Amino acid sequence: MTGTSETKNAQARAAAILADAGIVLTDAERARIEIADFGLGELERSGLEIVVYENNDRYCAKDLVLFPRQTCPEHRHPPVGDDPGKRETFRVRKGTVLLCVEGDPTPNPRAVVPPGSEAHYTVFHEIVLKPGDQYTIEPNIRHWFQAGDEPAVVSEFSSTSRDEYDVFTDPRIRRVPESQEG
Amino acid sequence: MTGTSETKNAQARAAAILADAGIVLTDAERARIEIADFGLGELERSGLEIVVYENNDRYCAKDLVLFPRQTCPEHRHPPVGDDPGKRETFRVRKGTVLLCVEGDPTPNPRAVVPPGSEAHYTVFHEIVLKPGDQYTIEPNIRHWFQAGDEPAVVSEFSSTSRDEYDVFTDPRIRRVPESQEG
Repeated sequence: MTGTSETKNAQARAAAILADAGIVLTDAERARIEIADFGLGELERSGLEIVVYENNDRYCAKDLVLFPRQTCPEHRHPPVGDDPGKRETFRVRKGTVLLCVEGDPTPNPRAVVPPGSEAHYTVFHEIVLKPGDQYTIEPNIRHWFQAGDEPAVVSEFSSTSRDEYDVFTDPRIRRVPESQEG
Repeated sequence: MTGTSETKNAQARAAAILADAGIVLTDAERARIEIADFGLGELERSGLEIVVYENNDRYCAKDLVLFPRQTCPEHRHPPVGDDPGKRETFRVRKGTVLLCVEGDPTPNPRAVVPPGSEAHYTVFHEIVLKPGDQYTIEPNIRHWFQAGDEPAVVSEFSSTSRDEYDVFTDPRIRRVPESQEG
């Protein structure tokens, strides 16, 4: 994401959504909320707001914010060297998250692929997660997720996170960890 | 912990503290909150209330509840087989947590050793954690922690948790994962 004012605006919105979920951040954390638009330039539709609490060589913990109907595009976490690939557990704190993974397609899913990106979404087994619900995604399983009509907050517990190795279905996507603008 | 009514009472108190911190649990999770008195039979002084969200062979995530001035007794997480020992990150969500670890003793610490257990507490380097603060404890480092005068909630992100291998300084302690009474 480039554009300082758009980044700062998205950070402020994400911070407000986290606060509304009862999640306390320090000032420094608020200033470095990662705003990921995946290089698509349509943050409201395709993007994710991320607070990384801890990421070390054994485990990782983040909170993820989605604006209403915002979508984290389809991707998977492949093996990297000795690492079998990131395993991750999503636990929804606020709002509704529509999570699509590999498996039998759900008839009439609630998640809607971002218009114009239909060619780059291939998995449609939908799991609907409400606050208190959680789901674990095994390494290398393709998945994407979208908030319902309200903002959503998801706690992500996982093995080590190496975002730069994520494989996105959409070849237009560039997933470079953002330099935060403080 | 034995005693169904004491367990149920402690579960209800812990659930209320979590709810007050904005943390949503399912009914099933509320019914299986672990009440650990470490075999000491003085839960109000020495104990911990635990919700395990996920514990697999790569990572673990829990929320920990402490009643006012309740203390989790001094212990360490030793290496187990190929595992170098549990590394854990505490992030305080609510209240104040007085965390004592190995290192230079803090003059006039705020944490107070539970009366009668003075012989079994040996580390007094105190870190005071408020909501939004976090601290990572490396494997095999002795530590203990206590809530301030208000209840506290701590999110714990860690490598795999193997409570049965924890080494407590107090030889009276029996740390058996509790059977939950639903």
